[in-house]
Amino acid sequence: MRRIAFFLAALAATSGLIAFIAPAVGLANGEPDAPYVTEMPHGYRNWEWVSSAHEAGNLNSLGAVLGNDVAMKAFRDGKLPYPDGTIIVALHYKYVTSDENNKVFGQVQSYVPGAPTNVQFMVKDTKKYAATGGWGFGHFQDGKPADAAFMKPCFPCHAKVQATDLVFTHYTP
Amino acid sequence: MRRIAFFLAALAATSGLIAFIAPAVGLANGEPDAPYVTEMPHGYRNWEWVSSAHEAGNLNSLGAVLGNDVAMKAFRDGKLPYPDGTIIVALHYKYVTSDENNKVFGQVQSYVPGAPTNVQFMVKDTKKYAATGGWGFGHFQDGKPADAAFMKPCFPCHAKVQATDLVFTHYTP
Repeated sequence: MRRIAFFLAALAATSGLIAFIAPAVGLANGEPDAPYVTEMPHGYRNWEWVSSAHEAGNLNSLGAVLGNDVAMKAFRDGKLPYPDGTIIVALHYKYVTSDENNKVFGQVQSYVPGAPTNVQFMVKDTKKYAATGGWGFGHFQDGKPADAAFMKPCFPCHAKVQATDLVFTHYTP
Repeated sequence: MRRIAFFLAALAATSGLIAFIAPAVGLANGEPDAPYVTEMPHGYRNWEWVSSAHEAGNLNSLGAVLGNDVAMKAFRDGKLPYPDGTIIVALHYKYVTSDENNKVFGQVQSYVPGAPTNVQFMVKDTKKYAATGGWGFGHFQDGKPADAAFMKPCFPCHAKVQATDLVFTHYTP
């Protein structure tokens, strides 16, 4: 696909076929018009740590939030809104107790991430995701994106934390 | 101190005073002969995420374990023992609930890192820390290292997990 896009770009540069380019590049991304994130951003497991969280109740998860370089700079500078290019990822796992650790401690006290449950993204692109506060939301299970119906509640819920530009997670120093 | 060390190094290079250098460089590190880590390794807050953990009971902490490049490679390759140069850091915080998040969820379910409690290190240097399984242990509160008495139980407790080269934390993919 990249080769085709490059070919079209070269073609456009010489013949002025600009209008032809946009959909071709869009197709490379799967669902260009989806109002949410349908492809997992690359390399997110190597990003820096923003914070950890345990959600009790039905979620019963333990995980971490990581950020790309744009996100980490914004978190550390404390400047809002987050700039375009910001990507925040939440890695969720079952909240389980560690028998191995508990044995050493002599009591049940150690809780660690168990099986992975899902990976969620927030991608800031004020143009592409203008309808959802400038954020594209993503939810992946076994690497596959959720459908539109599943994604619908993301924005209205995140919209409740306007003071932090729709981001629940705070940077942990 | 670095300037003095450099001066002594330059002096030694021209006059052959090698024996004079070792203690001078040692002094720059505070306690050269301490059987544990007395200076915080630099830049650890930018290291990659290994895992998260919640310790209940008296510790009541929530935090993350990060690793330097040597550590991350070893964790991902799954090869033991960890090579010299491995540094693993555990960032600990009070385990608190987030009123802000709970309000949105409509119930108390969200637990996040509160005030920082301590930062702990494991530094692999089989020569320097031969007496403690090749690992130098470190515990810092407000940036200050714990004393020898406080550090004494670290090694015997970690020695209980020989199968993972004294490291409790597992890599979370």
